[in-house]
Amino acid sequence: MRYTDIPAAHLVVAYCKSAGVRQVVLSPGSRNAPLVLGFTSDPYFECFSVVDERSAAFFALGLSQQSGNPTALVCTSGSALLNYYPAVAEAYYSRIPLLVLSADRPVYKIDIGDGQTIRQDGVYGNHIGFQGNLQQDVTHAPASIRWEGGREPGDPRSLHEMQARILAENEARVQAALQTAMEDHLPVHLNIPFEEPLYGTSPEPPVEIRPTLQPRLPEINGEGEDLLGHWQEAGRKMVLIGSLPPGSLSDAVVERMAADPSLLVFTETTSNLHHPEFFPSIDSVLAPIERSGQPAPSFEALRPDLLLTLGGMVVSKKVKQFLRAYPPAGHWHVGPHNANDTFFSLAGHVRSDADHFLGDFLPRTQPDTKSGYRARWSPVRDAYRKRRTAYLGQIPFSDFSAFEALIKAIPDGYMVQLANSSTVRYAQLFDMRPGNPVFCNRGTSGIEGSTSTAVGAAHNYEGPTLLLSGDLSFLYDINGLWNDRLRDDFRVIVINNGGGGIFRILPGKEDSDAFADYFETVHNRDMEPVCNMFGMGYRRAASAGELEAALDGFWDPSGRPILLEVRTPREINDRILLDYFDFLT
Amino acid sequence: MRYTDIPAAHLVVAYCKSAGVRQVVLSPGSRNAPLVLGFTSDPYFECFSVVDERSAAFFALGLSQQSGNPTALVCTSGSALLNYYPAVAEAYYSRIPLLVLSADRPVYKIDIGDGQTIRQDGVYGNHIGFQGNLQQDVTHAPASIRWEGGREPGDPRSLHEMQARILAENEARVQAALQTAMEDHLPVHLNIPFEEPLYGTSPEPPVEIRPTLQPRLPEINGEGEDLLGHWQEAGRKMVLIGSLPPGSLSDAVVERMAADPSLLVFTETTSNLHHPEFFPSIDSVLAPIERSGQPAPSFEALRPDLLLTLGGMVVSKKVKQFLRAYPPAGHWHVGPHNANDTFFSLAGHVRSDADHFLGDFLPRTQPDTKSGYRARWSPVRDAYRKRRTAYLGQIPFSDFSAFEALIKAIPDGYMVQLANSSTVRYAQLFDMRPGNPVFCNRGTSGIEGSTSTAVGAAHNYEGPTLLLSGDLSFLYDINGLWNDRLRDDFRVIVINNGGGGIFRILPGKEDSDAFADYFETVHNRDMEPVCNMFGMGYRRAASAGELEAALDGFWDPSGRPILLEVRTPREINDRILLDYFDFLT
Repeated sequence: MRYTDIPAAHLVVAYCKSAGVRQVVLSPGSRNAPLVLGFTSDPYFECFSVVDERSAAFFALGLSQQSGNPTALVCTSGSALLNYYPAVAEAYYSRIPLLVLSADRPVYKIDIGDGQTIRQDGVYGNHIGFQGNLQQDVTHAPASIRWEGGREPGDPRSLHEMQARILAENEARVQAALQTAMEDHLPVHLNIPFEEPLYGTSPEPPVEIRPTLQPRLPEINGEGEDLLGHWQEAGRKMVLIGSLPPGSLSDAVVERMAADPSLLVFTETTSNLHHPEFFPSIDSVLAPIERSGQPAPSFEALRPDLLLTLGGMVVSKKVKQFLRAYPPAGHWHVGPHNANDTFFSLAGHVRSDADHFLGDFLPRTQPDTKSGYRARWSPVRDAYRKRRTAYLGQIPFSDFSAFEALIKAIPDGYMVQLANSSTVRYAQLFDMRPGNPVFCNRGTSGIEGSTSTAVGAAHNYEGPTLLLSGDLSFLYDINGLWNDRLRDDFRVIVINNGGGGIFRILPGKEDSDAFADYFETVHNRDMEPVCNMFGMGYRRAASAGELEAALDGFWDPSGRPILLEVRTPREINDRILLDYFDFLT
Repeated sequence: MRYTDIPAAHLVVAYCKSAGVRQVVLSPGSRNAPLVLGFTSDPYFECFSVVDERSAAFFALGLSQQSGNPTALVCTSGSALLNYYPAVAEAYYSRIPLLVLSADRPVYKIDIGDGQTIRQDGVYGNHIGFQGNLQQDVTHAPASIRWEGGREPGDPRSLHEMQARILAENEARVQAALQTAMEDHLPVHLNIPFEEPLYGTSPEPPVEIRPTLQPRLPEINGEGEDLLGHWQEAGRKMVLIGSLPPGSLSDAVVERMAADPSLLVFTETTSNLHHPEFFPSIDSVLAPIERSGQPAPSFEALRPDLLLTLGGMVVSKKVKQFLRAYPPAGHWHVGPHNANDTFFSLAGHVRSDADHFLGDFLPRTQPDTKSGYRARWSPVRDAYRKRRTAYLGQIPFSDFSAFEALIKAIPDGYMVQLANSSTVRYAQLFDMRPGNPVFCNRGTSGIEGSTSTAVGAAHNYEGPTLLLSGDLSFLYDINGLWNDRLRDDFRVIVINNGGGGIFRILPGKEDSDAFADYFETVHNRDMEPVCNMFGMGYRRAASAGELEAALDGFWDPSGRPILLEVRTPREINDRILLDYFDFLT
């Protein structure tokens, strides 16, 4: 095996290996050659090459979403790392670890008109868990360079003394970056200047290091005791589950929650949590109340005394509006990281893994059998399910009916990756099965990386994957398919309503000329040429019958990925969705 | 005509109109509705809709590159504006004005777990000429909101007093942004929080303003006098022209420079400057000297006493290396903005428009007829032209020969947009004609936006446009073609060598397995499905004969844009290029 001969590059590679950072997504370049050589020379690493850095970063996000480990991202100098930013922000808000390694020019070449050079240090601003600039090795660089580790003329220290100091400081930064990524589940950034020559290798490591990572003990706080008192007093307790990876809560915890009739557990598609006593499809409960006119006594009856939130971001806008207008006496969040004051009523944050805390906490509580809270709302939930079935029987083929048919058709074992933003909202209206884990980029809810994320996640998932996407987000991230690791069992379903149909649903928009052009963004593109471009199979459906036919054999093993385009009528989808909520009333 | 009913949005729109910001690139969203309504309701503005914000920003850059005016960019909240960043950095370093208008959520909804919300304020860090956060109007917002312009309970000021203060402060920021964009030719950013409802309009403007912009007088410094003294003493004066829009220097200035035999004028393709006495193709002069061995007496003979630089970034790496190794006694830059110390020998900066200054300065100098400087090098230039012709007669079809044939074939009047990075480097080796203005994103030299930039530039150019691109940069920015303003006379030529051929040329790389996968990024994609996807005509050539045939009629008027794919042999291109420089020796 050969090593890069540049100490800073080897340092980073060696630390990644020791920390179990095994997957590395590389984008082509020259300045990053020392890192590319370092990672690709060691068979420990699984390396991927993705040209478009925006897509590369979301692909890495998908890998980490499934592995739970940081994925390293390696790019060249200049604007390359700016293309990572959308995925870095998504990772920041959805708490997914990424390790961004950007190669840079030597410090003295910045802002003097050199090519591919920007001010890379600290570009991710507030959206990064840790960022550090490594110092350039002085022993590696040719004598002619201007950089000598800060040594002024007359400084008695030798270059080797300078290098030892630089190595120690660099080591501290690499350690801090990896620790933050792994402990806080955040993206981190190391910017690494390299002097030419960049392609040197040697049979021995250029520097001897014994990577050490000192895991920090998690902070523990005593807010759980405080919560217990409030819990016992609250007759109406609402548990609202944001996005949560499958298996985050044990069966015992789930059953305990289900057994307490004073508890209303609201889940979303992205909660990956299922129980007959729970309430999926928040909007289907809230919309009819909204429509019943103000002031709404039903909202008062739904208002919890105590709100407990678990998991990450919540998709439903309606539940946010409701809980802001009818705030609980106290909102508690249980989770290992930060607590969002989403409803302006945050009372406490139990800093702990939710399952760990609740496994201990719930057995200490008494189910409140006198509470009629759940009993009041279970019939509402059961009724909307019946109304939904009735509604589906009377509407024409549309986004609404297509989503229902598609979600029902997904075979057990398929992971489902939802694109933003209409897709994830429609998916909330139907019941996803426990056999289909669901993921969606809800940290920033951007449309720019859903496909790339799905391709990365699919790579690390044991079973097959379905990406369910709208047409705009799919076309936006078309480069997500430019990836030679696309699995044959990857499936894509694009609901093509010819534009950003979600904007038709928004209140207050006028049906003006500007609307179709600048909000809805009407287009006439179809997806077949996309499939030809990337060697994918193609199917198409524009009616219920065609959809049924197109799904026949769609899930069977195939020699290449397959995309199904479902064409829905652009101009009626919004009406059908809004009428649905009226119908439920 | 109707107006948005939100004061901050109307303020921005009204100021844009008064400042002559006429072109507006909108990306779909909901939070930005007040701006979209404001711009699209007034026929003064030419509005464009581009879904992918990365492409939208480069498209806007192309519009501004040609118009010289700021183009406004409007996006929704969340990660959308991060996708602008690569183009913002390019605009920053290539001095092209852009006005980024990002819609935001109200301040109190940031970092509380709301959807599509990040810390937008100041995201472009150091790569922006001005950035400001507008304050939210208080009179517009519903009474229930938490934001009252900073008014605390008990504050005696009325909401209308608060609003007047907010309006004045917002006005100052909008003015500052526009002035920086127009006077300093830089990208600027206004972040604008909006409260719902977003879609309200009214027949009257929501606020009466009389937009005023106070143009700042340009700074003038007296360094020109200082330069004159050095100029008269220097026997060898080199003028190195970076990227410069066509027509930047008047004929009189060009002729004065050509008439002084002590002046060596080095131009690049992107200098858009032509004269028989000038030296295009810097690398073809320098490469043979490099190869003649060290120490190179010829380099000493080429070293200038005084270096004058004009224009923006310099493409040639060789001239940078040369001038750093053999620095002039003094380097002076003439230009209205910043001066880069590219060669670590900057002695002065004449802050002035180059043509304006030189038109006055050169007549005050005496042509140094005793200097043999140009006489020493003109034969070298003439010789390499002959050798180049000889070389072209003996090599097989390749990147090198294809570029020569293509550049020769471009009809007069075509604007040429060059992609990074191999394309612009190859183009340097041949003589572009004066009838073909040339542009390339050399601010950061990124590959991510060449196509989008070209499509935007083409829109604002009177004649037809050719985009000349490599395969990787073309596929990277594929969304650049997702634009309904693509002109029928737009032409694309993709030199497809099956990967990032430029990396083969780099010194020091090994021909390892890692090389093809992670540096060169070999792929087998062809461009025909891309053309099908975007409704473009397609032609293909893989030999000199096929190329000649494919170019027949290629430039004729057509009902749709046409792409010509030129396939070159991946594995010999680098050898042919390196052999060329040997052949010149």
